[in-house]
Amino acid sequence: MTETAEQAAVRAVIEDRIDAIHAGDAERTNACLAEDVVAFEAVPPLAISGEAVCDVEVTRAWLTMYEEPPRIEVRDLVIHASDDVAFAHALHHLTGRRPDGTSVDFWLRSTLGLKRIGGEWKIVHAHGSVPFHIDGSYRAALDLQPD
Amino acid sequence: MTETAEQAAVRAVIEDRIDAIHAGDAERTNACLAEDVVAFEAVPPLAISGEAVCDVEVTRAWLTMYEEPPRIEVRDLVIHASDDVAFAHALHHLTGRRPDGTSVDFWLRSTLGLKRIGGEWKIVHAHGSVPFHIDGSYRAALDLQPD
Repeated sequence: MTETAEQAAVRAVIEDRIDAIHAGDAERTNACLAEDVVAFEAVPPLAISGEAVCDVEVTRAWLTMYEEPPRIEVRDLVIHASDDVAFAHALHHLTGRRPDGTSVDFWLRSTLGLKRIGGEWKIVHAHGSVPFHIDGSYRAALDLQPD
Repeated sequence: MTETAEQAAVRAVIEDRIDAIHAGDAERTNACLAEDVVAFEAVPPLAISGEAVCDVEVTRAWLTMYEEPPRIEVRDLVIHASDDVAFAHALHHLTGRRPDGTSVDFWLRSTLGLKRIGGEWKIVHAHGSVPFHIDGSYRAALDLQPD
């Protein structure tokens, strides 16, 4: 299916954010966030919003938890976009190495909601998560692979 | 802020789905799903799509895991909608009682992506999740409360 101009514009925002993460560039990672963004992150709390999401220092702290900036492989990206509202979902393979030698390597699910604000697509909602096992352990299923 | 006609229409779909769950009506719970819906559910696998999501028997099996249909309290619902693309996010308080006497009672995060297809708003993407603790246990944070 041919990509619309709106889908292409949203894809560019998403790809630029991933590139910025790979470059370890906290400012550019956060540049696409709307001021009033609401995030449901993979780890507590249930929700955070606004400055707590946009804080470049928090993003920098995350990026520098790794020896090198983490890598995110994006798979199964689907974008639905109209003139000024869009959402996208994908699977993310997050990999990295902590300074203590620990490897981070798991898949998570990413959903983004975007709006065109002042002519620019901005992320107003982000939801990242890992499902949890219902075998009684209730542990995050960090061992899953995509089909 | 005044709700637009599109936001109101999307809200009606979401509210009807919650009502259908409360009524234990599996058909009506699934009526708003697009055929090619992609779901990231709170439990494995990473993603399911199409018939696996729309299967009324699976929804019925979920609804009948409880003595009475489960209750979902919706909080902090935000809807962004254009003419034919919309997304919404909210916190859901899921409560219920299993036939063995076990209580289910936790908050999860819900994000929905919708499109207007043939004049009707349909859910084309659903992402429900619980964050996981990073205290070393990697357990689902089923004990969180909203702010």
